[in-house]
Amino acid sequence: MAMGKKHKTKIVNDPVHGFIHISSPLILSLLEHPYVQRLRNIKQLGLTYLVYPGACHNRLQHALGATHLMDKALATLKNKGHHITPEETEMALAAILLHDIGHSPFSHTLEFSLVEGTNHEAVSKLFIRRLNEEFGGVLDSAVEIFAKRYRKRFLNELVSGQLDVDRLDYLRRDSFFSGVVEGMVGIERLISMLDICDEELVVEAKGIYSVENFLISRRLMYWQVYMHKTVLSAENVLLQILRRAKYLTRNGEKLFASPALLYFLNCDEDGEAMLRDEELPERFSRLCDGDVESAATVWTSHPDRILSRLCRMLAHRILPRTELASEPFDEEKIEGKRREVKRRLNLDDEGADYFVTSKTVSNTAYSPDKQHSILIKYNDGTLTDVAEASDMLRDSRLDSATCKYMLSYPKHEE
Amino acid sequence: MAMGKKHKTKIVNDPVHGFIHISSPLILSLLEHPYVQRLRNIKQLGLTYLVYPGACHNRLQHALGATHLMDKALATLKNKGHHITPEETEMALAAILLHDIGHSPFSHTLEFSLVEGTNHEAVSKLFIRRLNEEFGGVLDSAVEIFAKRYRKRFLNELVSGQLDVDRLDYLRRDSFFSGVVEGMVGIERLISMLDICDEELVVEAKGIYSVENFLISRRLMYWQVYMHKTVLSAENVLLQILRRAKYLTRNGEKLFASPALLYFLNCDEDGEAMLRDEELPERFSRLCDGDVESAATVWTSHPDRILSRLCRMLAHRILPRTELASEPFDEEKIEGKRREVKRRLNLDDEGADYFVTSKTVSNTAYSPDKQHSILIKYNDGTLTDVAEASDMLRDSRLDSATCKYMLSYPKHEE
Amino acid sequence: MAMGKKHKTKIVNDPVHGFIHISSPLILSLLEHPYVQRLRNIKQLGLTYLVYPGACHNRLQHALGATHLMDKALATLKNKGHHITPEETEMALAAILLHDIGHSPFSHTLEFSLVEGTNHEAVSKLFIRRLNEEFGGVLDSAVEIFAKRYRKRFLNELVSGQLDVDRLDYLRRDSFFSGVVEGMVGIERLISMLDICDEELVVEAKGIYSVENFLISRRLMYWQVYMHKTVLSAENVLLQILRRAKYLTRNGEKLFASPALLYFLNCDEDGEAMLRDEELPERFSRLCDGDVESAATVWTSHPDRILSRLCRMLAHRILPRTELASEPFDEEKIEGKRREVKRRLNLDDEGADYFVTSKTVSNTAYSPDKQHSILIKYNDGTLTDVAEASDMLRDSRLDSATCKYMLSYPKHEE
Amino acid sequence: MAMGKKHKTKIVNDPVHGFIHISSPLILSLLEHPYVQRLRNIKQLGLTYLVYPGACHNRLQHALGATHLMDKALATLKNKGHHITPEETEMALAAILLHDIGHSPFSHTLEFSLVEGTNHEAVSKLFIRRLNEEFGGVLDSAVEIFAKRYRKRFLNELVSGQLDVDRLDYLRRDSFFSGVVEGMVGIERLISMLDICDEELVVEAKGIYSVENFLISRRLMYWQVYMHKTVLSAENVLLQILRRAKYLTRNGEKLFASPALLYFLNCDEDGEAMLRDEELPERFSRLCDGDVESAATVWTSHPDRILSRLCRMLAHRILPRTELASEPFDEEKIEGKRREVKRRLNLDDEGADYFVTSKTVSNTAYSPDKQHSILIKYNDGTLTDVAEASDMLRDSRLDSATCKYMLSYPKHEE
Repeated sequence: MAMGKKHKTKIVNDPVHGFIHISSPLILSLLEHPYVQRLRNIKQLGLTYLVYPGACHNRLQHALGATHLMDKALATLKNKGHHITPEETEMALAAILLHDIGHSPFSHTLEFSLVEGTNHEAVSKLFIRRLNEEFGGVLDSAVEIFAKRYRKRFLNELVSGQLDVDRLDYLRRDSFFSGVVEGMVGIERLISMLDICDEELVVEAKGIYSVENFLISRRLMYWQVYMHKTVLSAENVLLQILRRAKYLTRNGEKLFASPALLYFLNCDEDGEAMLRDEELPERFSRLCDGDVESAATVWTSHPDRILSRLCRMLAHRILPRTELASEPFDEEKIEGKRREVKRRLNLDDEGADYFVTSKTVSNTAYSPDKQHSILIKYNDGTLTDVAEASDMLRDSRLDSATCKYMLSYPKHEE
Repeated sequence: MAMGKKHKTKIVNDPVHGFIHISSPLILSLLEHPYVQRLRNIKQLGLTYLVYPGACHNRLQHALGATHLMDKALATLKNKGHHITPEETEMALAAILLHDIGHSPFSHTLEFSLVEGTNHEAVSKLFIRRLNEEFGGVLDSAVEIFAKRYRKRFLNELVSGQLDVDRLDYLRRDSFFSGVVEGMVGIERLISMLDICDEELVVEAKGIYSVENFLISRRLMYWQVYMHKTVLSAENVLLQILRRAKYLTRNGEKLFASPALLYFLNCDEDGEAMLRDEELPERFSRLCDGDVESAATVWTSHPDRILSRLCRMLAHRILPRTELASEPFDEEKIEGKRREVKRRLNLDDEGADYFVTSKTVSNTAYSPDKQHSILIKYNDGTLTDVAEASDMLRDSRLDSATCKYMLSYPKHEE
Repeated sequence: MAMGKKHKTKIVNDPVHGFIHISSPLILSLLEHPYVQRLRNIKQLGLTYLVYPGACHNRLQHALGATHLMDKALATLKNKGHHITPEETEMALAAILLHDIGHSPFSHTLEFSLVEGTNHEAVSKLFIRRLNEEFGGVLDSAVEIFAKRYRKRFLNELVSGQLDVDRLDYLRRDSFFSGVVEGMVGIERLISMLDICDEELVVEAKGIYSVENFLISRRLMYWQVYMHKTVLSAENVLLQILRRAKYLTRNGEKLFASPALLYFLNCDEDGEAMLRDEELPERFSRLCDGDVESAATVWTSHPDRILSRLCRMLAHRILPRTELASEPFDEEKIEGKRREVKRRLNLDDEGADYFVTSKTVSNTAYSPDKQHSILIKYNDGTLTDVAEASDMLRDSRLDSATCKYMLSYPKHEE
Repeated sequence: MAMGKKHKTKIVNDPVHGFIHISSPLILSLLEHPYVQRLRNIKQLGLTYLVYPGACHNRLQHALGATHLMDKALATLKNKGHHITPEETEMALAAILLHDIGHSPFSHTLEFSLVEGTNHEAVSKLFIRRLNEEFGGVLDSAVEIFAKRYRKRFLNELVSGQLDVDRLDYLRRDSFFSGVVEGMVGIERLISMLDICDEELVVEAKGIYSVENFLISRRLMYWQVYMHKTVLSAENVLLQILRRAKYLTRNGEKLFASPALLYFLNCDEDGEAMLRDEELPERFSRLCDGDVESAATVWTSHPDRILSRLCRMLAHRILPRTELASEPFDEEKIEGKRREVKRRLNLDDEGADYFVTSKTVSNTAYSPDKQHSILIKYNDGTLTDVAEASDMLRDSRLDSATCKYMLSYPKHEE
């Protein structure tokens, strides 16, 4: 990031949005904070780069990009005559810059695994409160916005809603880096059509085709990228690796791992308890993708047959065959795979569980029901949910099939 | 177009697809033919550039782009083990290069106006037959393919079908030049997923989300660009200009016009008769956008009040207000607009008709029912129509609302 | 162009810069004026689309794009603490919007041919003065800026200088539409590095590599696109067509042509006299590419052998062979070509002149010496010309070879 | 990477080049090999992503992209009538796929530090020989090509020369990911103009402006990205971290580090000796960016004041101020900085050396003198070095200033 002028505007060169200008000193201080800088070492899409090699972008880029879009969106709304104070602008920028701060490495894979019983949103909230203390309470309103409790609801919705700048940025960014060009969302047009009605975020009627396109692009990205079979297969292997590592650690095995990773492997508190731990943000802030990658590489030669085999599968990209289906898999079939693995790899039931996985999948972070609805505003002032307003969406089942049954088992040749 | 090497490959630099290589001497000869070169002076999207200033691309570019995609599609299919002879390849390339050769200037506006009772496909067919004679019958198979009568049906379908290279090119190209970036179609992915079953063109099952995205992008382009209110409004003015010019010409008025345009203004034969005219291709080949633009500018100062007013409306971009609706407009409302125009412009009933238009609109060239269906091929070999295969499309009304009611009348301030 | 909100901001979708916002009512009125709207029908690069099929963009797009960049540049300068009044902003926007208003069709080809002894800048000045009268003198300062006489020289330089927004837009736009991707200029970075010193436009020292890149991109575009041999060849044919048409007209021949074109063919006044003609803007404003294209097509069957042959050469793209060289061509060689043409086409000396052309070429509009220098500002405040500041440029002959010798003669096979 | 068809073509979606097709089973096997897969976890541009957040792409992408361009280049040459056997094609593809296989993490930073006295090319050679053994000698010719000893020299030059596909890919890729759009190289045009003369790679004369543009783009990327002051500053901090870690390790300190990293920290053999170590490829293949990142994060709280301070500087992005100059820095100035650091941080001479660095910098991997010259081929068959052929380059000092003096010292506020 090159400085524009000292103590003035910082300009960041983003391949997706071009030049991003940051002029608020508060936002600049937050950006420089180690908690935020850490996001440089957390990949936005975890193991997706095993399938789409370009998808190696990190969460800091996304946070910056979303902050940029928030700036654009607020400028549009002000231009349409809505009153938004400079303080509110700064708080909305802060809330979106920090919205992903609680992500663990490979977070969609590991968030329920490393910190059991909690999720990245709870951890983000903790982080933001901590930063608010550190910054002497200036982030009070940002905390409110992040918690969706701020009075002007459209600010909450711009941070987290059906058409928030989070989604606008990540869909465009994930499309850009994965090379799935047809997933491109018309950000400029969508933002230019935002408006406010009774403090709610709405979209002008002529933006209806853009909203449809946004929903379909999200769907395409969902199945083509986020829920790609091979990605799910790799993520499941990593999940099993961490599960095994936790098991071994708790049974007294001394595994190679950074202190931060070791803490989480050892920790047997539940999420609630963890979130009360004063040290959590500090510990968390030292845990990056590199800790997991480095450990998993070391473990490829660990004496525990299960752990080392799983790690080699990931390192050498010999991923299990993975099937996705709309209906549950036949118990017979699952049992067959399990028997085969037990025999071939000489494992007991418990061991086989690490290699044959049957579960339902749905990538919660990208699930379409994250928030309620997108409101379309007609020229006469009436508001309608886009699911009603769009003749295409009205009877479609756009949101129905976001969960599938997955069965994963080693390829025969392995 | 810079020559690669003499009598070898010609390379054309296309902003949409990059470098286009043409190596067949037959295709090169066709490309150089005056009938094809004429397409340089016919804009792909007629008056759309009044709304989207970048949309000034011409039909020659599109013909070249579609030819390039045909080349890619055939290479993919050959690579999947399907037998396509070099002659068939050349004929398919010729058929797609020539597929739009019969377009008149501003064709979607004028095709039923200049040459009444016929359409650009009939004229294209005539042109291709004429070229076939000129080239000594070597285009026989191309004629068959263009007429959808060739034995290997997938070749016919690649030229004209639900997922033909015509559409793939024009959607991407129109999106590129108009700047409606979100209309971008995943051409490479779609082409890589084409296959053949029983001589029919099919799409591999994993391409289903790409097909959905293609259909939605087409829908977005349809409403956002092709059926944009202001575009329709301008096209209607041009239609009325030509209607008035014909009326005046047939009543003995000597209008300024190029001989080619004059012929069509004078001609009162129906389409059938015209298509029998030996001279038609030659006459047609001399008629470009410039003839209409130049004449309409001259006519802005013509003594006929109606003609000159219409021409000034277009030249100075003082376009009628245009409303689109899903339901027919109230007769009362239409009559009111008509009365107002008669009074304000001092016109009789016939005259008012040129300024107040009520009709249904649907851009036939881009209508989704151009051909039947897109077949999805599952791994087990079964084929299903995408409208069934896609859980999103199954109950959607994607194809329903492609026709709307339009009411157009002068703005008050005019 | 879709309206953002009534009487508020107009948003234009530009494929090059994205969404362009226009909020000044004065700028909007100028944009709607027929003199400006006419630029829609003047191609930016004349006949270049015969070689680069995508290069069919028009001068209105460019005027809009340059206006957008002016807006960005002024915002950057204001942000760096420089005082620029709202009136100055509006005047600079007006000056750049109107900077090309005096272009004739195929202007770089025809400006010295249609209106002998003058150029598009003189005509533009006339147009702007006329508009200033029509708008009651509100454009006074814009006239000053356009004439490079405004007190704050950086405004003059932004409209016309070594690093003006005119060039920034056309280089990027011409690169985009021609598909010569490597000609892309780093507009955002260059604009972000602009500054002002003693009312002069300067570039911050760290922008030096961007300036080098800008100069080299311009050079690449110059030779690869603007001075492409085949483009020059086609332009020369068009020049000869107009020359012949003038000759015939003045000898009493009644050629088909629109009244506006006819006026210029007939007119034998010199530029000075023409510029005093009250009616010139009005006549000029009715003359578009279409008039020339339409006439040249009609003339393909004119009885004058020379005129019709030249027109067929252009229409059917049977262009003369054209050689470019750094040294003058041998008189012997030129004479030989001339003899061959006379013999083969059965022409006298005067006739041969239309088919064999020997001249020097340099595309004045794109010549690098349009203005003096680009000043680099170091952190210590010193200013240095980039030609000195850049170790690459110091001894290079970047500007030397912008003029070449051209020899053009019919191919043998013709 | 999604499989096209089993045992057939693999298609990889690359955001830079689009779809990359790999059909050779040998190339696929090499791609799947753990030595190559490891490149996924080595960033192409090391710490550059601290300045250009998008520049997080890895070496595997680049290896794939370069392989794709090799495929295109060989197809072009075959198309121009040059004989290249299928075996040669496969060997050239293998050589370029493997050309960076010996890179260590943050290689341009660490290659002389981790493995003292050697470089990534020597290690790559070792890796390739090892793979050749493993694959039973089928890579013999690839080894020859990589070593620049193959008989058809143009193959060697395509892998490593002034205009090799390595550079073509990395310049375009680095431009794409960093967002420095103006660094874009015209790959398609350059490749289309390649030819062969006496087994040497040459460029057709009309490609001269593209070559100029390529050289200037490289220069822009060099100074704007590769040698960006802040990047150099960060890389120097990392270098000092590793230097300190080695020092502590050799003095008996037990630092946290993965076994692979620990081996290199401990190792005091010189490069020659290391390259003789049978185990080197295996050890190397376990060492990725994550090991260094993870260790450096852990070391932020190490008791050694120097190590932990350096690590915190990197982790929290409190980077030293860094000056670049064409002339050596004043000894006085350097000594002053050193004294200040000693006083402020309470360090002795040896300690101060870790915080004040004065050296010359030149990014060897991107240095323009990597290979001799680019030959331009004229139509008459003569060959000229582009440095002579280009009137722009002839007297320019394009290659002169690739080395600068750097002085780096902590900011006062730290």
